[in-house]
Amino acid sequence: MASDASSGRRLNIDNINPHVKAAKYAVRGELAVKSEEYRALLSSGTSHGLPFSQVISANIGNPQQLDQQPITFFRQVLSLLENPLLLKKEDVLINHLDYKPDVIERAKWLLEKVGSVGAYSASNGAPAIRQSIADFLERRDGFPANQADIYLSAGASSGVNTLLHIICANEKSGILVPIPQYPLYTASLSVLNAACVPYHLDESKNWGTDLSVIKTAHEKAKAEGVDVRAIVIINPGNPTGASLPEEDIRAVIDYARQERLVILADEVYQTNVFVGEFISFKRMLRQLQKENPGQYDHVELASLHSVSKGMVGECGHRGGYFELVGFDPAVQQEIYKFVSIMLCAPVIGQCLVELMVNPPKPGQPSYDLYKKEYDAIFNGLKERATALHKAFEQMEGVECGTPQGSMYLFPTITLSDKAAAAAAAEGRTPDEFYCMKLLESTGVCVVPGSGFGQKDGTLHFRTTFLAPGTEWVGSIVKFHNEFMDKYR
Amino acid sequence: MASDASSGRRLNIDNINPHVKAAKYAVRGELAVKSEEYRALLSSGTSHGLPFSQVISANIGNPQQLDQQPITFFRQVLSLLENPLLLKKEDVLINHLDYKPDVIERAKWLLEKVGSVGAYSASNGAPAIRQSIADFLERRDGFPANQADIYLSAGASSGVNTLLHIICANEKSGILVPIPQYPLYTASLSVLNAACVPYHLDESKNWGTDLSVIKTAHEKAKAEGVDVRAIVIINPGNPTGASLPEEDIRAVIDYARQERLVILADEVYQTNVFVGEFISFKRMLRQLQKENPGQYDHVELASLHSVSKGMVGECGHRGGYFELVGFDPAVQQEIYKFVSIMLCAPVIGQCLVELMVNPPKPGQPSYDLYKKEYDAIFNGLKERATALHKAFEQMEGVECGTPQGSMYLFPTITLSDKAAAAAAAEGRTPDEFYCMKLLESTGVCVVPGSGFGQKDGTLHFRTTFLAPGTEWVGSIVKFHNEFMDKYR
Repeated sequence: MASDASSGRRLNIDNINPHVKAAKYAVRGELAVKSEEYRALLSSGTSHGLPFSQVISANIGNPQQLDQQPITFFRQVLSLLENPLLLKKEDVLINHLDYKPDVIERAKWLLEKVGSVGAYSASNGAPAIRQSIADFLERRDGFPANQADIYLSAGASSGVNTLLHIICANEKSGILVPIPQYPLYTASLSVLNAACVPYHLDESKNWGTDLSVIKTAHEKAKAEGVDVRAIVIINPGNPTGASLPEEDIRAVIDYARQERLVILADEVYQTNVFVGEFISFKRMLRQLQKENPGQYDHVELASLHSVSKGMVGECGHRGGYFELVGFDPAVQQEIYKFVSIMLCAPVIGQCLVELMVNPPKPGQPSYDLYKKEYDAIFNGLKERATALHKAFEQMEGVECGTPQGSMYLFPTITLSDKAAAAAAAEGRTPDEFYCMKLLESTGVCVVPGSGFGQKDGTLHFRTTFLAPGTEWVGSIVKFHNEFMDKYR
Repeated sequence: MASDASSGRRLNIDNINPHVKAAKYAVRGELAVKSEEYRALLSSGTSHGLPFSQVISANIGNPQQLDQQPITFFRQVLSLLENPLLLKKEDVLINHLDYKPDVIERAKWLLEKVGSVGAYSASNGAPAIRQSIADFLERRDGFPANQADIYLSAGASSGVNTLLHIICANEKSGILVPIPQYPLYTASLSVLNAACVPYHLDESKNWGTDLSVIKTAHEKAKAEGVDVRAIVIINPGNPTGASLPEEDIRAVIDYARQERLVILADEVYQTNVFVGEFISFKRMLRQLQKENPGQYDHVELASLHSVSKGMVGECGHRGGYFELVGFDPAVQQEIYKFVSIMLCAPVIGQCLVELMVNPPKPGQPSYDLYKKEYDAIFNGLKERATALHKAFEQMEGVECGTPQGSMYLFPTITLSDKAAAAAAAEGRTPDEFYCMKLLESTGVCVVPGSGFGQKDGTLHFRTTFLAPGTEWVGSIVKFHNEFMDKYR
């Protein structure tokens, strides 16, 4: 009938799922795709006329793509889980390959518990690994944790996907989401056709939470008929790098108690804290329950963690978990069924979660090397954050709070009207325009603030501080000066 | 206010997502949970009065939970990917640990291509692995494949989830699903609130497809206002074990061409074929395109594969992929964005996909062992299928076609009115009742036919034939005879 094959297709851009179409995910969007094209060009050995010799992917928290080496203890154990036949040659492992007895012991224990990493585990994760996580949570928080309330997931993203699927009943269901936010939340809510209820973080207070702002956003949504069911908190913050003080956490829990909001605490950067200490929502909730008997018993909290970040940095392994507090057992059964449909989280990733929450202890053979590697990564990240922050402080029209945690800085940039006009001429927002020019000039890929949300009239970009060396930081400074001069 | 904490909770069974609640997933349902409870009881060392000494999980295709050993070549490579430091000791690997040079070479190549298995890959999978899959598809089908049309996924389930998310636009969107079917399809459609359009397979023709039945189901749905967009084919079949003949495949493609239906070909059992040979939908579509220039160009096909089944059996690794043929590039961009939200498939699972599609070749050092292990698994499965089939043939009221492929048998059982009445008294369907009694008496866990769908008035159960030994088969026969006598 039609000569154009496409006219006979069933699916086209106008009839597929409109909610998938509506979703935005800038972290892997146009800039990221372009940066990969540059990388492919450069890998052929010639410069192709590009004004840089390498691409720096500062757009995504992907530590091992850059400099970060995996922690030896973790990977030694994983190698034995993948090839258990090696355990028949313990002498070779110990005498020729620097495997310590605690590596071998842990691998044997995990294999005894999971059987084979090639076998499906229970849908919510291997029971022994859930118990190990519960033990860790008890040590971390000083309050007991129950393995039956823990669900292994393929990274925290998959856990968020599960929780939002359960919580959102229809298009009236709304979730309070911080702005700026990691776009997983808005994208998942788009796909689910549920309502995102944005609340702005307070840049003037190191991107902390401001309860009056949350309240205003919540009331406005309620007035519009939204059934607001949960509040997302990302602590330490992504993209902001903020580490929340105790009073903010208390205030959020108290508000959730009053308003019957499920708390979704995204705590994947819990070990990436440079200022103060990390306080988990679970610990604070249990403390409030202890201080105020009966008052907080109905608060529902889901807290998420992952092997992707911290000093582990194993995002390619897609390991993570969430812990539920205060959830109705009948609701938990539905969560179990939901995760069953995808069978189980990757079992080797589950084992890596176990290693993360139960690393070598002082006195154990692998401890010294583990500690050395862990500290080196921590200090390296802190130094790079500080160096990058210093560079931002010297850049005209750039403002950035002291690095507190996570893997990101999220500076404000002030651009001229001339730059805004040039951006508009290309059909871009000014921050997109700036980031595109930065990529084209330096090979450094960052994400414009509009990819995370920002207050009207403000501009930002998010950069990781994972890349080694200082050359790339220098190239940002140089680009920025030239950009400012050009559009002055 | 209320003394019962639950009354203050936000979430309860009546206000969570009703579409998640509506989903059914029997493969990991009540029977599976009960069997795990038995297993936990028995693991304590005493029988707890149970009339069996072990639990046989014949409810799920989980080869390595039972007898199946992983293939050495695969696991040796994976161990090096997890601990690349081992590559600094090649002499130890070769001289003391039986690693062959091609194992080392492959690990080096994969590491060069993916960087680290701890790093995120591209959202659609590492480019080199996609190319390797494309090469495999070209060898398998005799027609070219393009790496840009291949998407790595966390097992085939995750691929199905992606595709259904794109295809289903609203509650009117419908998908033709075979009955009996693997419940992933109905469960995912429930969650998406899209319409499942069931079509029955023909038990009298070894569970083949009957085009007139498909047509009737399709027409009926259209008349009811369903916008039927795709047809699912599982070949070789799950739960049926059928291996489709060429004429069935041709007929389905031709119908999809006429009716503009996207074909979702679930081909995860493509190497588990005992009768005839596996014919891929891709090969048949390309052949039809060649034979009838211009006529089939608009047909959209997505075919799925996985490391979970076949002789690989690595379901815990959650590796898989799908290939798209004939899709609109703008639609593919939306698929790319959708998979980006969950970042990427597990990278070690991606590497395992590469090993599966590109195993050692004749003449390479690891080939002989690979071939020996592969053949032993294949023959073992075939023998067990035959032995189980023989047992079924001797059981009163049980009918089962000759094993053709996949990992399952799906016999018909005919039960007495007395048995049906006893089931009803427990609030169960007769097949659920039968399977529950089987589990309670023997420790053998199978799945009632109602978990997959079956024609009204018929009863079945699905069992894998993965478990080693013959004792469990004997215990099924003994149970069955007693059951038939009791309810005669």
